[in-house]
Amino acid sequence: MNYAVILAGGVGSRFWPFSRELEPKQFMKILGETSLLQATIQRVKGLVNPAQTYIITNSIYFYEVKSQVAKFRIPDKNIILEPEGKNTAPAIGLCAKLISQIDKNAVLLVLPSDHYIKNINNFKQTLKKAIVSAKEGFLVTIGFKPTLPSTGYGYIKVNGKKNNHLGVEKFLEKPDLNKARKYFKDPHFYWNSGMFIWKASAFLEESRKYLPKLYANLQLVHSVNDISKIWPKLESISVDYGIMERSRRIVLIPANFYWTDLGSWDALAEIFPKDKKGNISNKDVLHLDSQGVCVFSRGNRLVSTIGIKDIVIADTPDALLVCDRSKTQSVKKLVEMMKVLNRKEHLVHLTEKRPWGSFTVLQEGVGFKIKLIEVSPKKRLSLQRHKSRSEHWVVVSGKAKITTEKHVWVADKNRSVYIPMGMKHRLENPTNLPVRIVEVQVGSYLGEDDIERLDDDFKKECRASV
Amino acid sequence: MNYAVILAGGVGSRFWPFSRELEPKQFMKILGETSLLQATIQRVKGLVNPAQTYIITNSIYFYEVKSQVAKFRIPDKNIILEPEGKNTAPAIGLCAKLISQIDKNAVLLVLPSDHYIKNINNFKQTLKKAIVSAKEGFLVTIGFKPTLPSTGYGYIKVNGKKNNHLGVEKFLEKPDLNKARKYFKDPHFYWNSGMFIWKASAFLEESRKYLPKLYANLQLVHSVNDISKIWPKLESISVDYGIMERSRRIVLIPANFYWTDLGSWDALAEIFPKDKKGNISNKDVLHLDSQGVCVFSRGNRLVSTIGIKDIVIADTPDALLVCDRSKTQSVKKLVEMMKVLNRKEHLVHLTEKRPWGSFTVLQEGVGFKIKLIEVSPKKRLSLQRHKSRSEHWVVVSGKAKITTEKHVWVADKNRSVYIPMGMKHRLENPTNLPVRIVEVQVGSYLGEDDIERLDDDFKKECRASV
Repeated sequence: MNYAVILAGGVGSRFWPFSRELEPKQFMKILGETSLLQATIQRVKGLVNPAQTYIITNSIYFYEVKSQVAKFRIPDKNIILEPEGKNTAPAIGLCAKLISQIDKNAVLLVLPSDHYIKNINNFKQTLKKAIVSAKEGFLVTIGFKPTLPSTGYGYIKVNGKKNNHLGVEKFLEKPDLNKARKYFKDPHFYWNSGMFIWKASAFLEESRKYLPKLYANLQLVHSVNDISKIWPKLESISVDYGIMERSRRIVLIPANFYWTDLGSWDALAEIFPKDKKGNISNKDVLHLDSQGVCVFSRGNRLVSTIGIKDIVIADTPDALLVCDRSKTQSVKKLVEMMKVLNRKEHLVHLTEKRPWGSFTVLQEGVGFKIKLIEVSPKKRLSLQRHKSRSEHWVVVSGKAKITTEKHVWVADKNRSVYIPMGMKHRLENPTNLPVRIVEVQVGSYLGEDDIERLDDDFKKECRASV
Repeated sequence: MNYAVILAGGVGSRFWPFSRELEPKQFMKILGETSLLQATIQRVKGLVNPAQTYIITNSIYFYEVKSQVAKFRIPDKNIILEPEGKNTAPAIGLCAKLISQIDKNAVLLVLPSDHYIKNINNFKQTLKKAIVSAKEGFLVTIGFKPTLPSTGYGYIKVNGKKNNHLGVEKFLEKPDLNKARKYFKDPHFYWNSGMFIWKASAFLEESRKYLPKLYANLQLVHSVNDISKIWPKLESISVDYGIMERSRRIVLIPANFYWTDLGSWDALAEIFPKDKKGNISNKDVLHLDSQGVCVFSRGNRLVSTIGIKDIVIADTPDALLVCDRSKTQSVKKLVEMMKVLNRKEHLVHLTEKRPWGSFTVLQEGVGFKIKLIEVSPKKRLSLQRHKSRSEHWVVVSGKAKITTEKHVWVADKNRSVYIPMGMKHRLENPTNLPVRIVEVQVGSYLGEDDIERLDDDFKKECRASV
């Protein structure tokens, strides 16, 4: 049977300020209302059943993945949680081991969750060819004919046709521009897409040869409960470096569909329609004599430009980036600067997601804080109390169930509630529609850590659930 | 006696998005906590008494001017209100007529309110020289030796020394670059600063010759009550074009202090300190490999740049401008575009000023709106009621006096109030410290025009007082 192994643990920073450490690229909605992760799942429909679709991710992303995959009927148990990121080889190895225990002949479609693909039918045809080769015992990689001498991709050198695929001579890491130009001219070079197809058993055999320590540890895994025991002992290593650059069973299937790994703002700009002057505007934008300007906006502000050229503007409520289009690779460096400076704009958005919904700090002043809180249908926050603040709630849409020490009741829109300092309380959405609450906190200390949680539905591996 | 006539009616758009039609440049605090208007008043201390300081402005700016000049003890009656802008000649003529009725020998210091000047002592010395010449009956203008071939200033050609001033041959409008280069090389050319010193009587005599229609209408003005009668009949004309280009009584005093008319973002950038790479940052900014970038921020956001050069970034909560530094003159055009598109970002800021304080819309959603309201000491809003909305108020700092149909009471911080739809209510600050209220509006229609005002302290010529 075919299994999808979708890699969704990445913490990429290249789309900062749209992506944040706690809301990485794979969860972003690039075009329309579907995230890159959701699009990845949608693409394998017909090749893989939901019950055979696995998602491996970092434990801090569990609730986000769970809510994003809910509509695909993928069982919760198929969301595999890494205690911490160890790069791709351990993640894929773990899934190969767990799946091979269920199905010895399993064929794995290993797919990154943060790429962009057009022509889904061609994608499926390519994957079907790859499955044929995988069943013959090969480790199959999907390669793309370079369309420019890119320094942003790894390359694969092939050495002639074998049956329905190409033999692979070697894997090459991201080159400098000189090498990239050489590779680009040579018809034997392909871009490495990071999409791999192989039998779980074939992958485990190769691991035994080339990553014996990983293999030995995987032998100790009989269920997900064993992950935490072996994980700290594993080395962080990519599948490219650990297996693909060494194995002799590798073949390549050339792809015939549009693909980009969306490695930078400039790569993202490629997939958007442009006006006559090459400007991209996804929102409320005014350009005067500008060209090649790409505006990406997550705020409600008017973005205007005059006389600028080839610049990316990425606008969010708490952070703005203005970047030359030829320098978008440096966004990573900027994020490193923010870490060193102990800022928080690289970690979370102003609207912070929670397992039960989200909240946005609208304003903070001396002695007060104003939040807009959204509780998802049938979800509730923890039963909690605060030492240093009182809270005023106004229900502005939907119906909220409110529990305090004295009362339990359902508050309609336009009702308000006062929660004095120290009083136990709980906010819940008992309905099938979202509830929105304006919360005005008043007190001497208003940090997120002034919460005593007395009962919490979301204790499982995840960050603070408020 | 000396009189200051400070021109504060301009609606300049060159500093958009910092300046807005309803909050123009002269009211902006460029450096520190003093606005350009306030700095203008401060500069003439010692030359002119507060009782002889007049400010002529557009009627919509009355409360803003009043609050900005409060600390200078200038009588309210010295704030002269134009029913509408008619350029500088009618404004100056009106002040000359009104002041000449009080003091026939009045010497007027006519000063724009939106320029930037350093070396106040030298400024005063120059003005004192100008007053000497003015008393001899000359129309005196202050000129600056050009420091570059600017196309942003008007020029004045002089023709040799007469006593303590220079004779003026002619006034020249803003030139093209070729002409500007010629003027720059010729030692007979000065920049026109727009600062003029003359006897009220001398100005009126010249008006009689060169602007007879204006002069005739001014004869009908005996008090401020007469302004509205003549104003609609006046032609809109600048003093430069109407008088200075024609009169033969004009002389020039060269200035020896730093001055800029702050005609653009680029001119503003000149007066700020720069880092090693020529970047200016007045706030929370991260630059990576950028140079000559000027960030001006009125928001709370992180502004970051990568690899950009010679660009102005002006960031406000509801509008962002990213502009090449050589194109900052085009901001005017952008504002014209916004007018044509019927937008509102060129009119007001997200935080809107009111005679009683200010309010900021923090969030608007379907059926609700969240505002932060600040009421200045001893001020109150109108007694009002709403047809389509209820309001929830939470006092978050200070003490508010709240009046409803049923009660009158003073609410402390952390107290909340519910104002049901249709109920009369009034919000007041009875204390000497500002009061802040979070207002959550809930209703089917939440426009600013759903207010029935039953009593209002601020009915006088001004925009809606909420």
